[in-house]
Amino acid sequence: MKSRSPSRARSHYWVFKISAVDSKSFLELVKRRRSCRDYSEAPVPDELIGNCLEAARLAPSACNKQPWRFIVVKDCVLRGRICSEGLLPGIPMPWTQKAPVIVVLGAETSIVTHTIAPLISKVQYHLVDIGIAGEHFVLAAEAQDLGTCWIGWFNEKKIRRILNLPRSFQILSLISLGYPASPLELVQDSSRMKIEEIAKFL
Amino acid sequence: MKSRSPSRARSHYWVFKISAVDSKSFLELVKRRRSCRDYSEAPVPDELIGNCLEAARLAPSACNKQPWRFIVVKDCVLRGRICSEGLLPGIPMPWTQKAPVIVVLGAETSIVTHTIAPLISKVQYHLVDIGIAGEHFVLAAEAQDLGTCWIGWFNEKKIRRILNLPRSFQILSLISLGYPASPLELVQDSSRMKIEEIAKFL
Repeated sequence: MKSRSPSRARSHYWVFKISAVDSKSFLELVKRRRSCRDYSEAPVPDELIGNCLEAARLAPSACNKQPWRFIVVKDCVLRGRICSEGLLPGIPMPWTQKAPVIVVLGAETSIVTHTIAPLISKVQYHLVDIGIAGEHFVLAAEAQDLGTCWIGWFNEKKIRRILNLPRSFQILSLISLGYPASPLELVQDSSRMKIEEIAKFL
Repeated sequence: MKSRSPSRARSHYWVFKISAVDSKSFLELVKRRRSCRDYSEAPVPDELIGNCLEAARLAPSACNKQPWRFIVVKDCVLRGRICSEGLLPGIPMPWTQKAPVIVVLGAETSIVTHTIAPLISKVQYHLVDIGIAGEHFVLAAEAQDLGTCWIGWFNEKKIRRILNLPRSFQILSLISLGYPASPLELVQDSSRMKIEEIAKFL
């Protein structure tokens, strides 16, 4: 970014303007962000969670509908119940019990956006929007050295009952949040398809 | 981020280690990123598009299925047809004609991920995944001073015919890409719901 170029502010000082994210540093953030499945017990300050929510709040959405809702569960009894009763069997996830925060990410559904619009566009755009806002949350967490994991293997009915949520609240994902117990490796290049497999230029 | 702290490298120089994205700079990136609906005619170098694709490629996805596919349309005849025949009536978008690149973002659908999995989870996770990867693309573009706009108001059948795409390719969004004709304002705070409206702590 041009704003990174040094400017001589005083005769013997170089002052860098550090404000903008350039392509390289954004790619580094993306590579650093791994699914974290082992958390330390250190609590996460509310201010840091607030930064994640702020990044999510500012996300773009279809018709600016902002369907995303975040329930930040810090209470250890509720978290315990979500992680023991609210997950689906088959894939044991005992590590969720150690995460100091479980975020329940959902959408506030409405007739216009979730029934009529998909009839025209054939796409449930609130799901795309939830992906966008959720990833803003996750990347903002990574930018603060916090670990996260998207969790899709849950029992919606049970979590809705545990948290006393209305039926209009469609739970779409859980996101675990906390400090990683140990440093995470970068995203392995071999774990992803090649550019040629996912993109084509015309 | 700790890596930002200055260290005295020489007696009269402060050297900053500029590599990591911190919460403040990530929020600035998110705020800077507006939907761009007025493009300059300057072409976008392939290398910059490649950086956007690389950021998208590394995105997380449900079961690491990586359903996203990007068709980067630079050819002006194809672009012209997409923007004239491929958009839905009702909301005129003449500005799309000026964008030097139209990205067709879709999912390669399969029986397991798009029929069986949603029966269990009740959620079409490939749509969430498309949101995540598409937003990586969009934020990487912003980090390179490129403008983008998610476009959901299109005629899937017509675009599929124009680009000769198979039925397994589900088009989920278009993304216009190019240099903004004029600087964009930051995201207006008033255009988004408040934190209290989208988040709750328990």
